[in-house]
Order: sequence, then C-alpha cells, then structure tokens
Amino acid sequence: MNLRDTIRSIPDHPKPGIIFRDITTLLGDPRAFRRSVDELVQPYAGLKIDKVAGIEARGFILGGAVAHQLSAGFVPIRKKGKLPAETASITYALEYGVDEIEIHRDAITPGEKVLVVDDLIATGGTAAAAVELLQRLGADVVGTCFVIDLPELGGADKLRAMKVPVRSLVAFEGH
Amino acid sequence: MNLRDTIRSIPDHPKPGIIFRDITTLLGDPRAFRRSVDELVQPYAGLKIDKVAGIEARGFILGGAVAHQLSAGFVPIRKKGKLPAETASITYALEYGVDEIEIHRDAITPGEKVLVVDDLIATGGTAAAAVELLQRLGADVVGTCFVIDLPELGGADKLRAMKVPVRSLVAFEGH
Repeated sequence: MNLRDTIRSIPDHPKPGIIFRDITTLLGDPRAFRRSVDELVQPYAGLKIDKVAGIEARGFILGGAVAHQLSAGFVPIRKKGKLPAETASITYALEYGVDEIEIHRDAITPGEKVLVVDDLIATGGTAAAAVELLQRLGADVVGTCFVIDLPELGGADKLRAMKVPVRSLVAFEGH
Repeated sequence: MNLRDTIRSIPDHPKPGIIFRDITTLLGDPRAFRRSVDELVQPYAGLKIDKVAGIEARGFILGGAVAHQLSAGFVPIRKKGKLPAETASITYALEYGVDEIEIHRDAITPGEKVLVVDDLIATGGTAAAAVELLQRLGADVVGTCFVIDLPELGGADKLRAMKVPVRSLVAFEGH
C-alpha cells in the first residue's frame, strides 16, 4: 500500500488552479490510517514525549491517535474563542489578513517535551504560530509532524529555520 | 486515579447557571487520556468495527485514538461547508434555531459497522443526527460512546430510543 494513493486530490478546490489534498480518504482506510500514525510516532517512541499538541481540526484526529500511542497527554490548539479556561493566544499573518490560535495557559508545564501534529503543512503559518505559542509557555518542542507536505510552499523550511525538526510522510509538488 | 477528578468544571460558562465540563484537563493527563480511550474501546475490541465516526471537533481527538486502537478507519462528521468532496447532510433542532452536520457520501460502504465517538453527550441532538446520517448511508451503527454524560439532559435516552447502544464513562448531574 502506498500512502500517497490513499489521498484524494480534488482539482480546482477551493478555487481554480488549486489541487486540494483530501486526507479523509486516507483516514477512512484502516491500513493507511494505522500506518500513518505508526510512522508519525516511530521516531518519537523512545523520547518520552509529555504532550502531543494537535492543531484544530484535522490535527486532532491524528494527534489524538499519536498521543494515545505515545502514552502522552493531548493538548488542543484551537481557533480563537473555543477554549473555556484562561488562554494564551498568538496572531499570525495569512495570505490576506490575519488569524489567531489559542492554547490553555495551564496546558503545558515548563520543560515538557511536546510534539506538534497536523495533517498537512503548506506555508507553515499556523504550525509556526503553534510552535511559538508552545515555546512561550515553556514547552520543549521536540518535533513537528505532518502526513502531507507541500514543500514548494515553504512551511517545512520555515519550521526548520526555527530549529524545530519536521517530519512528513508524503510530499506533493505544487500547491 | 478517578477519571471524574481529571475533568475541570467551570461555573457559569458559557452563561450564568451552567457548569461547563472541560475535558481538556483529562486529555492533557496521559494516564486519564489513555484510560479513557482504553475504556471506550474495550466493549468493541472483538466486534471488528470498520469505521469510527468522530464528531467535530473534540470528538476527533478521542475518535482518532479509538479508531487507531481498533484498527478501524476514521470518518469525520463535520459542520457544514468543511468537507471538500460530495457530502450528505442533516439538519437538526437546537434550543434556539437549527444546525447542520455533514459527512462525505463515500465515507461509508453499506453494511459497515460504525462506532460513533464524541467527548460529551448532553441533549443528544448532534449525536442523534450523526447516527441518522450514518444510517442513511447504510451504516450499521453498533454503538455510540462518550467520556461524559449529562443524563438529566436526556441525550442517552434519545439514542437508546433509536435502538443504538450508548456508553459513557463519567456522569455529571445537572446541566
């Protein structure tokens, strides 16, 4: 089984010229889902990860499975206004405008080893903001991992420039 | 360890008189998260579940871990407009107004055994809509499971009236 073949490509979505990489077909395939989680986990199995931080919303699916497999806690990083207790937030630039993500202030104890999980890395804006937010709370961000990388968009390079390891399972050319 | 003690209660959230049960503290506790997933999975381990359907967004965290543990596929049930391919949708009543959830039409093959996972059941409106949506696509919904039940709000009874088994790990009185 080739993981790449289980990802559905949707031409001209959400707008003309963009090929959307739809991970739901991978998630729905039991062998592809299991293999993705196991491959994401593999380099971190011996590192005693304290927390897995998943980015809303698709990062919650893989992040929950990765946290369970590593016997780590799970920390949600959410869009603004979704978390019920005291939060720390960060604003970051999008192509047009800005976005904001939040984390519970007490979700991280300083020094904890944290792995960031999301389904896909494109420009890396959200992932870089998540890493910075975690570091502000004192986390030791030991890695970031994604099923899909769109390397031409530079997200993985952006994270590496922050000296954070990046792992992905499948790369697609183009956007 | 008592799972109940790992759930944070936030008085008067989101409005006066409501005690919000915050599962993020359970998720962040490695032992409580692992135990929750293992207890949710336990009755279904021998049933050859094909798909775990998780309800956006907190249901993705537990659902992803449950699907991985059962070696099942994962199917996201999302709020309207979030899924990129052809969807089936269902509208259901809220206290004030209506809401709508969607699933990819090709996410279920008729006859597949599906387990529905969410973090909490209150009035059961979303869960019942998810069950109906899955059944319309031909799923055999073998169970629904939640970490938290608010039994006074009647959600579990509503699902049982649909002849769908319901399992939850912690019950809180009141809203």
